[in-house]
Amino acid sequence: MSRGAGTAGYDMSIIFSPQGKLYQVEYAFKAIKTGGLTSIGIRGKDCVVVATQKKIPDKLIDPKSITSLYKLTDYIGCVQTGIVPDSKAQATKAIQEAASFHHKFGYQIPPNALAKRIADIAQLSTQHVSARPLGVSMILIGIDDELGPQLFKVDPAGVYSGYKATGAGEKEQEATNFLEKKFKPNPQLNQDETIQMAISTLQNVLGADLKASDIEIGMCTMENRKFVQLTEAQIDDQLTKLAERD
Amino acid sequence: MSRGAGTAGYDMSIIFSPQGKLYQVEYAFKAIKTGGLTSIGIRGKDCVVVATQKKIPDKLIDPKSITSLYKLTDYIGCVQTGIVPDSKAQATKAIQEAASFHHKFGYQIPPNALAKRIADIAQLSTQHVSARPLGVSMILIGIDDELGPQLFKVDPAGVYSGYKATGAGEKEQEATNFLEKKFKPNPQLNQDETIQMAISTLQNVLGADLKASDIEIGMCTMENRKFVQLTEAQIDDQLTKLAERD
Amino acid sequence: MSRGAGTAGYDMSIIFSPQGKLYQVEYAFKAIKTGGLTSIGIRGKDCVVVATQKKIPDKLIDPKSITSLYKLTDYIGCVQTGIVPDSKAQATKAIQEAASFHHKFGYQIPPNALAKRIADIAQLSTQHVSARPLGVSMILIGIDDELGPQLFKVDPAGVYSGYKATGAGEKEQEATNFLEKKFKPNPQLNQDETIQMAISTLQNVLGADLKASDIEIGMCTMENRKFVQLTEAQIDDQLTKLAERD
Amino acid sequence: MSRGAGTAGYDMSIIFSPQGKLYQVEYAFKAIKTGGLTSIGIRGKDCVVVATQKKIPDKLIDPKSITSLYKLTDYIGCVQTGIVPDSKAQATKAIQEAASFHHKFGYQIPPNALAKRIADIAQLSTQHVSARPLGVSMILIGIDDELGPQLFKVDPAGVYSGYKATGAGEKEQEATNFLEKKFKPNPQLNQDETIQMAISTLQNVLGADLKASDIEIGMCTMENRKFVQLTEAQIDDQLTKLAERD
Amino acid sequence: MSRGAGTAGYDMSIIFSPQGKLYQVEYAFKAIKTGGLTSIGIRGKDCVVVATQKKIPDKLIDPKSITSLYKLTDYIGCVQTGIVPDSKAQATKAIQEAASFHHKFGYQIPPNALAKRIADIAQLSTQHVSARPLGVSMILIGIDDELGPQLFKVDPAGVYSGYKATGAGEKEQEATNFLEKKFKPNPQLNQDETIQMAISTLQNVLGADLKASDIEIGMCTMENRKFVQLTEAQIDDQLTKLAERD
Amino acid sequence: MSRGAGTAGYDMSIIFSPQGKLYQVEYAFKAIKTGGLTSIGIRGKDCVVVATQKKIPDKLIDPKSITSLYKLTDYIGCVQTGIVPDSKAQATKAIQEAASFHHKFGYQIPPNALAKRIADIAQLSTQHVSARPLGVSMILIGIDDELGPQLFKVDPAGVYSGYKATGAGEKEQEATNFLEKKFKPNPQLNQDETIQMAISTLQNVLGADLKASDIEIGMCTMENRKFVQLTEAQIDDQLTKLAERD
Amino acid sequence: MSRGAGTAGYDMSIIFSPQGKLYQVEYAFKAIKTGGLTSIGIRGKDCVVVATQKKIPDKLIDPKSITSLYKLTDYIGCVQTGIVPDSKAQATKAIQEAASFHHKFGYQIPPNALAKRIADIAQLSTQHVSARPLGVSMILIGIDDELGPQLFKVDPAGVYSGYKATGAGEKEQEATNFLEKKFKPNPQLNQDETIQMAISTLQNVLGADLKASDIEIGMCTMENRKFVQLTEAQIDDQLTKLAERD
Repeated sequence: MSRGAGTAGYDMSIIFSPQGKLYQVEYAFKAIKTGGLTSIGIRGKDCVVVATQKKIPDKLIDPKSITSLYKLTDYIGCVQTGIVPDSKAQATKAIQEAASFHHKFGYQIPPNALAKRIADIAQLSTQHVSARPLGVSMILIGIDDELGPQLFKVDPAGVYSGYKATGAGEKEQEATNFLEKKFKPNPQLNQDETIQMAISTLQNVLGADLKASDIEIGMCTMENRKFVQLTEAQIDDQLTKLAERD
Repeated sequence: MSRGAGTAGYDMSIIFSPQGKLYQVEYAFKAIKTGGLTSIGIRGKDCVVVATQKKIPDKLIDPKSITSLYKLTDYIGCVQTGIVPDSKAQATKAIQEAASFHHKFGYQIPPNALAKRIADIAQLSTQHVSARPLGVSMILIGIDDELGPQLFKVDPAGVYSGYKATGAGEKEQEATNFLEKKFKPNPQLNQDETIQMAISTLQNVLGADLKASDIEIGMCTMENRKFVQLTEAQIDDQLTKLAERD
Repeated sequence: MSRGAGTAGYDMSIIFSPQGKLYQVEYAFKAIKTGGLTSIGIRGKDCVVVATQKKIPDKLIDPKSITSLYKLTDYIGCVQTGIVPDSKAQATKAIQEAASFHHKFGYQIPPNALAKRIADIAQLSTQHVSARPLGVSMILIGIDDELGPQLFKVDPAGVYSGYKATGAGEKEQEATNFLEKKFKPNPQLNQDETIQMAISTLQNVLGADLKASDIEIGMCTMENRKFVQLTEAQIDDQLTKLAERD
Repeated sequence: MSRGAGTAGYDMSIIFSPQGKLYQVEYAFKAIKTGGLTSIGIRGKDCVVVATQKKIPDKLIDPKSITSLYKLTDYIGCVQTGIVPDSKAQATKAIQEAASFHHKFGYQIPPNALAKRIADIAQLSTQHVSARPLGVSMILIGIDDELGPQLFKVDPAGVYSGYKATGAGEKEQEATNFLEKKFKPNPQLNQDETIQMAISTLQNVLGADLKASDIEIGMCTMENRKFVQLTEAQIDDQLTKLAERD
Repeated sequence: MSRGAGTAGYDMSIIFSPQGKLYQVEYAFKAIKTGGLTSIGIRGKDCVVVATQKKIPDKLIDPKSITSLYKLTDYIGCVQTGIVPDSKAQATKAIQEAASFHHKFGYQIPPNALAKRIADIAQLSTQHVSARPLGVSMILIGIDDELGPQLFKVDPAGVYSGYKATGAGEKEQEATNFLEKKFKPNPQLNQDETIQMAISTLQNVLGADLKASDIEIGMCTMENRKFVQLTEAQIDDQLTKLAERD
Repeated sequence: MSRGAGTAGYDMSIIFSPQGKLYQVEYAFKAIKTGGLTSIGIRGKDCVVVATQKKIPDKLIDPKSITSLYKLTDYIGCVQTGIVPDSKAQATKAIQEAASFHHKFGYQIPPNALAKRIADIAQLSTQHVSARPLGVSMILIGIDDELGPQLFKVDPAGVYSGYKATGAGEKEQEATNFLEKKFKPNPQLNQDETIQMAISTLQNVLGADLKASDIEIGMCTMENRKFVQLTEAQIDDQLTKLAERD
Repeated sequence: MSRGAGTAGYDMSIIFSPQGKLYQVEYAFKAIKTGGLTSIGIRGKDCVVVATQKKIPDKLIDPKSITSLYKLTDYIGCVQTGIVPDSKAQATKAIQEAASFHHKFGYQIPPNALAKRIADIAQLSTQHVSARPLGVSMILIGIDDELGPQLFKVDPAGVYSGYKATGAGEKEQEATNFLEKKFKPNPQLNQDETIQMAISTLQNVLGADLKASDIEIGMCTMENRKFVQLTEAQIDDQLTKLAERD
C-alpha cells in the first residue's frame, strides 16, 4: 500500500486540499466497502423494504447475533453498511435521538427528521478535528403519516437523501445501475414485489443465488407501520415465489 | 494532484501566509464549486427570487428530497450552493438563530440581520483553529419591512453583501457577467420578469435548455411576504412564457 | 523491527488510510497476541463455558493471583485475552457498568446488554484521539432469562458478536478451525461435554497435554445461573474423563 | 509565491523569532493591504472625519450594502480597512463592548476607552495560540466630553494611538506622507475643510478623480456629537467645493 | 546513545507499534533500573517481608531520610524501586486511596484491593496521552484477614500479581532466579527464616556482604499485623544469625 | 535572517535546551529592543523618577496619545519599554492587580508587592506552553511607607529587582554603564538632581540633545507621594537648568 | 551549541528515552548552574544554617532586593539556587502551601512535610506535559519539634532528602566533596562553628575570600526556632572569628 497519491498531507486530518476536497471524508467512504457487504433499500406502493447480505464471518458465530438491521423506534428501522462498530454506534445514537424527540415532543419522530438529525451529527465530524468521520452508510426506512413510505440514505459526509430505491456498500454502484433500469418505468410495487425486487437486486449484483439465511430483510407497511424483520421462513417463501416468477 | 503550489505549508491550517493570505479559506471557495451546481438570485421591483439547478445525482433519488432551497423562517429563504452537508448544517444553524431572535425580541428577524449573523459565525471558523470553514455559499432572500425586497450572499470567508442580482457555484463568474449586462439599464422587473431573468441566466451560463424539473425557484413578494417555492407547473408556465417572449 | 510497511504515517493516530483502514485498531489486535495466551468459549445445551491457559510467567507468582477469568456480576463472567492491565481495566469498567445498570433499573444486566455496552466503549477509542484502543479481547458468558446460555466476544475494534464457540488470543485462528469442524454437526453438548470440548480444543491448538493447573475454566449453567470457576480438582476430573473418553 | 524568506518556521505560529519578531503579526499587516482599499481619518478644529474608498467589487452588489463605516455607538464610529469579515467581526465586538460599558457604568463609553479595549482584545491574539490576529486596521472617531474631537487607529498588533490625521490600507504610506505635509502648519480645519482634506488626500494618493459614489465619509461634530454618515449628495457638494477651491 | 533501534517513531508517545507494542511502557521498565537498587519481597508461613538496599548517594545525606520503604496504612507497607520522585508520588497516591477507602467503607483496605487500585491508576497512564507512565515497581505487603500474608508487585504497565517471593530493580532477574531455586521445595518459612532469606538473596545477587546499614527491611506478621520497619540492631542481629547458620 | 544558530529546535517552544536555556525567553529580551526606545529609572534621596524617550513614529500622531508612562495606582507608576501592545496589556494587568489588592485588603498595594505580582505572572508564561512571554521591561516606581522611594525593574523572564538606578530598552547596556559611574560615589540626589541625572543619562547614551518634547518623565516624591508626570514646561525647565549646570 | 548529542528527539518533551531517561529533567539540572551561584546548608548540634553567595549582577541594583533566602513561615526558611524567577515562584508556592497547612490543621507545618509537598509538586511537572520542570534547587531548613534541626534539599526531579550538610548550584560537587571530608568525624557543631563551616565551605569552593556583603546566611536555632537572616555585621563578625581561628 502506498500513500494517498499526490495528496501531499492534506489527507492526514480534516482540512481542505487546494482542490477543496476533504480526503478523510473520502477515505471514510472507502471504509464502508471494507465491510464487504451490499445493502438494498426499496420503496414500494404501500411499503418500504431494506435488504442486506448476512455473511457470517465465522461459522461459529451465533447467526442471530449478526445483523445489519436495527430497529430505531417501533416505526423506523435501518440497515447499516460499513465498519460494524461504527454501524452500531451510529444506530445507538439514532435510538437515543429518537427517544429524546419522543420524550420532548410527545410523538414519534418522523423518518425524515431522524435521517436529518443523524446526517447533522455526521456532518460535525467532517468539520471538527476531535474525531474521525464514521465509516458507515445508513439506509433508513419508515412510514410517514402524510408522505407514506419513506426511504433515506445517510452517508459519512453527512448527506441524506430520500430514495425510491438505493444500494450501499461494496456493490453500491452495481446495485444502483440495476435498480435504475428496473425503476425506469416507475413501477408501483406491492409488498411481495418490493421484497422480491430487493432480493433479486442483491442476487444480481452479487452474481450468486442467495439462501434465506444469507439475507436480512426489514420492512414497514402502510397497514402495520411497525418496523418488522422477516423471518427466515418468510424470506424463503419470497425466494420460492421469486424463483417461480422468473 | 499536487500540493498547493508554493504555499509552503501555510495552507495546512488557519494561519496567515507571508502575503497575508488564508489559504484554507481560499480552498473552501474551491469546495463550493465541487458541488457542480450554479445558483442565481435576483431582486425585482416588488419581489426577490432565487433559482438553482436541480440535478438528481442518481435517478433513484426521490426528487423531492433533493433541494438546495431552505425556508429559514416563514419570511426568509435561501439557496445553498456547495458541499451539501455543509449547506444543510448552515441552514439548520440559520433556522435556529432566526428562531432564537424571534423568541428573544418578539418579532421576526429581518433578512439583513440573519445574513449578518450567519456571516459572523462563518468568520469565526476562519479565525479559530478548532474547525474548518464551511464550503458553502448562501444566497438569502426576504422582504424587509422598510427596505422591501432583499437579496444577500454569504461566503465561506464570512463576507455578506446585498445584491441586485448574483450567482454562486460552478458558473458564478459566467452568471455574474451575464447579469451585469442585463442589469446595466437597471431594470425594474416585475414578478414574471424576475423569475424569467433567473431562468434565462441559468440557461445561458449552462448553455443548455432546462426543463421545469431541472430548476428550483424560491420567491418572496411584497404582497405575500412569505417565502414560497414554485411548483413544477409554475416553473413550466414561466418556461413557456420565456420561450414565447424570446 | 521496521516501520509498518507502506503505512505512510496513517498508522500514527486514529485516522483513515486512503484504503479506509484504521491501523491503530489493527495493531491493537496484534497486541492481543503479545500476551501469548489462547482462550476458548463454548456454549452447550444448558451451559456456557470459558477456558483459557493459565501460564505462570514466574514460578514465584502466587498462582491464585494469576487469572484471566473475571466475575462481572454474580451471573456474568468473562475471560480476557491480551494485554493484562488492559484486560483488568476493561473488566473493572464492565463491573461498574453492570452495577450501574442494576442500580438504575433494579434488575441484573442481561449478558448481551453488557457485551454491547463494553463494545460501545471500545468503539469510542477507535474514533476519538484522546486514548488508544485497548489491546484485549473479551469472551463474556452468562445465562439469559429468555435466550438461555449466551456467549459473546468483544474485540478492540468495538465489534461484539454472539457465538456457539470461539477462540481468542495467540492461537485464535487454529482454535476457530478446530471448533468449526467439531461444531459442524451442531452438537447439543451437556455440561461435561462442553467443558471437555473446551479443554480438548486448547490441548489441540497448543499441541500439548495440559495439566489441571495450566487451565482456567469458568461456567454458567441453566440450573445454577451463577458464574462459577472450576476448582483444580474439578478440572482434573474432567481431564481424566477426557482421557478415558479418547 | 515562496516561503517567508529565512523565517525558518518561526512564522508558522505565535512564537518569537531569534530577532524577537512575531511574524504572524507582521503577516496580518500584509493582510490589511489585500483588501485593496485606502482610508483616511482627519481631526478638525471642531469635528473629526473618516473617509474611505467605496469600491463595489461587483456591479450587481447593492451599493448600500457595501460599507467600511460602522456606527459603534450613537457617538462613535469607525472605518475598517482590511479583511472584510474580520472588519465586521471586530466592529461587532466593539459595539458589544460599548453597550456593555454603557450598561455597566450608565454613561457612554469615551472614544479612547473603546479604542483601548479593542486594542487589548487584539493584543490577546498576538500572545495566545488559539486564534490568529485579525487582518484589519480600525480608525475610530468620536467627540470626547473634555478633549473634543478624537481620532484613533488600532492595528493587528494591538497598538492604538491618537492622531491628528492618518491613513490605513493599501496606500497607507502615501497617505501619511501627503498628510504630514499638509499638517505641518498644524491647520485648524473647519468642517468643510476637514472633509475636503480627507477627499483630496484620497484622490491624491489614488491618483484618480473620485466620484461621490466612490467615497464614504463619516463624521462627528462638536455641535451634533452623533456619528453621521454623509449622503452622496453631501459628498458631491464637497467635491464641487473642492474643485472650485483648487 | 542512539535512537531506539527500528522503533520508527512509535516510541515517541502512547501508540501501538505495528507489532502491538507500547514502547513508552517498555522504556518505563528501563527507568526502574536506572535507580540502581534491587529489592526483595518474601512471604513466609505467618509473615511477609520486604527488603531492599539502602544506598546513601551522598555521605552527607541524613541516612534516616533515605528510604524505599513506605507505610501505606498501619497494616500495609511497600518497597518502591525505580525513579525516586515517582516512587514517592505513587506511595502518596496509595496512602490517599487507602485513606479514602477507609473513610468510605469504615474498614481497612485489604492489601489486594490497594494493589489493584494502584495498578488501575498505572494502566491509565499507558492508555491516555496526557502523562507518561511512572518509572517505578511497587512491592506491597500486608496481612489479609482471610488469606494471611500477602505479597504483591505492581509494575509500570499496570500489572499486579501476588507472589510467594519476588525481586525488583537492577538485579530483578538474578533475584528471581535465586529465589526460584530456594522456593522450589516450597518452604514454610518462619519469621527469622523469611528475613534471612531476603537478606541472603540480596547479598547473593549483589555479590557483596551487606552491613545492617545497607539494608532496609519492612515486615507484617500474623500476630502483630502492623507494618513495621526493622531497626538497624534487629537487622544486625539477623545478619549475625545468618552468618552463623551458613 | 537565519534560524537561531545551533538552537536545533529548542527555541520553537518553552522547553529547556541541553544547556538549560529557555530560548523563547531570550528572544523576548530581543523583542524589547525592537521597540527602539531607551528608558531610565533613578532613585533620589526623597524621590524616584522614570524617564524615557518620546519618539513619535508618525508626525500625525497626537503626541498626547504616545506615552510609555502608566499610572498604575495614584501612588505607583511605571515606564514600559518594548513591544507597545504588550506594554499596555501588562500595565492594564498591573492596574487590575493593584485595584484587586486595594479592594481585598483595604489599603494601597506597596510598590514591591505589585512588582512581585507582575513578575510572578511573567514567570508563568516562561513555564507553561499556552502563551508566549511578554516582550516588555517594566520599570516601576513608588514611595513605600517604610522604605521611602522604591524603584523596581521586571523583565520577560519574571525577574524583578530593586535598583538605585537602571535602564531598559535599546541602550540598556550603555545606560547601565553610564549610571554605574555616576552612582559610584552613591550620591544623595535631590529632586532636581534626580530628574537631571535621568535626562543627562538619556542624552548621553543616545548621543543627542533632547528637546522637552522628546522626553517623558514620571515621578513620585516623599512630600506628595502621588505619581505625577512632568509637563513639557517642567521638563524644559529642567533641561535649561541642566544646560546651565554643565 | 549543538543538539543534545544522540538524544534523537527524546529530549524535546517529557517522554522516556529508550534508556529510561527523562532528558528535560536532566536539562533542568543544567539550568540550576546557569544561575552561577553556589549555596551551602549545614546542620549543627542545635542549629541549622543556609549560606549562599550574594552576587549583585549590576552595581545599581539595590542590594537589599537581591536575595536567595526566603522565609517560608516564621519557623522555616530556604535558600533557592537556580533560575531566579523559578526560585521565587517555587518559594511563593511553598509559602502558600505552608499557610494552607496552618489554616487547615491549626499548627505550623513541620519542615519535612513542607519539603515533601514541594517535591510532590515538582514531580508533577516531570510527569505531565503541560509545563516544564522548574530549574531550581531548594535547600530548606527549620527546627522540628521532635527531631531538632532539619535540613532538606528538593531538586527539579522532585527528589527531597534530609542532609547533615549539602551544597547546590554551580559548585555543588566541589562543596559536597569539601563537606564530606569535614563531616567524616561527624562533628557536633555549635552555632558559631556551623556558620563558620558554611562560610569556609563557600570560600573554599569558590577559591576566593568573601566579604560580608558577598554572603547571605539564614539560620534557625533550638532556642529561638524562628528563621532569621544574619545581618551584614553579624556575618562580618563571623568572618573575623573564622580568620582568627585559621
